[in-house]
Amino acid sequence: MELFLGIEGGGTNTRAVLAQADGQILGVGWGGPSNALFVGREAASKAIKQAISQALAQKRERLKCKVIAACIPGVNKELLQLTLKPLMEWEHLILCSDTLSALQAGLGPEGVGVVVSSGTGSFAIARNKKGDIAVVGGWGPLLGDEGSGYYIGLLGLKAIIHAADGIGPPTCLTRAIIERLGLTNPLELRRVAYSGVLDRKSIAELSQVVMVMAKEGDKAALSIIKKAAWWLVVMARAVVRKAGLENEIPVVFVGGVARERVIVEIFKRYLDKLLPGAVYTPPLFPIELGSLLLAYKEGGISLKESTLHQVKTTYSSILKSI
Amino acid sequence: MELFLGIEGGGTNTRAVLAQADGQILGVGWGGPSNALFVGREAASKAIKQAISQALAQKRERLKCKVIAACIPGVNKELLQLTLKPLMEWEHLILCSDTLSALQAGLGPEGVGVVVSSGTGSFAIARNKKGDIAVVGGWGPLLGDEGSGYYIGLLGLKAIIHAADGIGPPTCLTRAIIERLGLTNPLELRRVAYSGVLDRKSIAELSQVVMVMAKEGDKAALSIIKKAAWWLVVMARAVVRKAGLENEIPVVFVGGVARERVIVEIFKRYLDKLLPGAVYTPPLFPIELGSLLLAYKEGGISLKESTLHQVKTTYSSILKSI
Repeated sequence: MELFLGIEGGGTNTRAVLAQADGQILGVGWGGPSNALFVGREAASKAIKQAISQALAQKRERLKCKVIAACIPGVNKELLQLTLKPLMEWEHLILCSDTLSALQAGLGPEGVGVVVSSGTGSFAIARNKKGDIAVVGGWGPLLGDEGSGYYIGLLGLKAIIHAADGIGPPTCLTRAIIERLGLTNPLELRRVAYSGVLDRKSIAELSQVVMVMAKEGDKAALSIIKKAAWWLVVMARAVVRKAGLENEIPVVFVGGVARERVIVEIFKRYLDKLLPGAVYTPPLFPIELGSLLLAYKEGGISLKESTLHQVKTTYSSILKSI
Repeated sequence: MELFLGIEGGGTNTRAVLAQADGQILGVGWGGPSNALFVGREAASKAIKQAISQALAQKRERLKCKVIAACIPGVNKELLQLTLKPLMEWEHLILCSDTLSALQAGLGPEGVGVVVSSGTGSFAIARNKKGDIAVVGGWGPLLGDEGSGYYIGLLGLKAIIHAADGIGPPTCLTRAIIERLGLTNPLELRRVAYSGVLDRKSIAELSQVVMVMAKEGDKAALSIIKKAAWWLVVMARAVVRKAGLENEIPVVFVGGVARERVIVEIFKRYLDKLLPGAVYTPPLFPIELGSLLLAYKEGGISLKESTLHQVKTTYSSILKSI
């Protein structure tokens, strides 16, 4: 049986999924963040290795994959080959954008509509009936990533600074974030902010604190979540225009941030308001399977109903067994 | 005659001023950016050395200063001593905040009121009748610096990205900034943004392009300048509350950004609106003399009218002769 491997990397973690051509998933693995632009080549390579090793765990022999598809921002083919060589062999290795794997998993191989992704970073991608693809966002933490976990975490930090300076209202975020960072006082942020402690990932993780405080009704936290949801819908609207989509447009919302009901509800409300043609839709596949689906596509495997079913059921049973 | 040296450092450049106790300025020197947090210890040390060497240029013998006062964010005493030792000797070396030197130059040794500074970074500092001092802002490019040159430059970059994504309106900033950066296309920003090309200083320098475009009536640019001016006045208002200042409060606006008339006019308008007790006031001294005034203070030199006059006139004649 031919083997296929999908690798998804990003600012938060790395996932690898090994599967047969019939949709039977054989192994799943996790690693740390692998966007080499932000964590460096070495850490990225280590995270990818760890994820793959775990996915291959039960295979004793040296495997050969028909197709490996990797969607890891900031990683080039040369680094990928160096990383994979000690672990396995392959016939085809393709490097794709993480926007494309999100589209693949969110709407299926040929689906028309929009996928909005908000994890550590953020972007929106759309496909129209002709198969044309448009992307908005994905500019990284300095220039873009509005509505992302990083954006939410950073606004959380700014909210407690503004409270300390008397520019913004007092907020429960102060105590919650200061405690999460192991500090005793907001003024200590001045020291840690530029010492490397507050890297992209750890700022994005603070978004969880902001979500919790928003759920508990903190006004500053809720206002941040609203801003983030607004940006994500504005990105969806911009990508809809770019792709020339019209009427009853499926909009899928994915990524770590989209796991929180508090932002999903606000996202839906803005969607109704700003993009009346939108139909909020769950992703067709677990979003971390996007690269595997791209590997199938590259290998000429048509995703029949039975294959899709096999992918979904074996993936969920593997997750349960871990 | 006893000698005094003031050194001012920051994200844009470094200045050193050597003077006698009677206010006679003997030398002025310039160096590159010296905030070691952002440019590193070595570059900071080099910039400081260059500024001092230039200020000492005409003195052949090895000088001894009574007081050296240095206001350089991100530089500690140990680095400063290492940098100064090969150049000169001193009796007292003090390291002060750059907020304090701005206060000193802006309002004079005992002046009551507010100094708002917007250079590469931004802050507001106030002193009340009792001599209590309050500071707002100065949190650096990640967490704060609203209204600064960095803030303006970064919003300029975001404006051209939003235009490219179809989220914001088209803007003349696109061509102007892309040309300034030596690129041909906004999409290239994705590559250069995280390669180290767009460092703090070069982003802050883009604020000049935004100012020019705002003067030419570009809506996106003007909206950025308005946001920046609004933040600076909000900071002034917050620091006025912190210091408990009331009625006819002198507000001095300084820094590289404050040299541009387009933002000064908007700043004044917001000041009238948001802080009715404010009286827009020019700085008492050229702002880059703040550290020298602190050195005088530390050395017990009282700033009599004749000394102040001497400082101002000799400083301006040295500047003219360069």
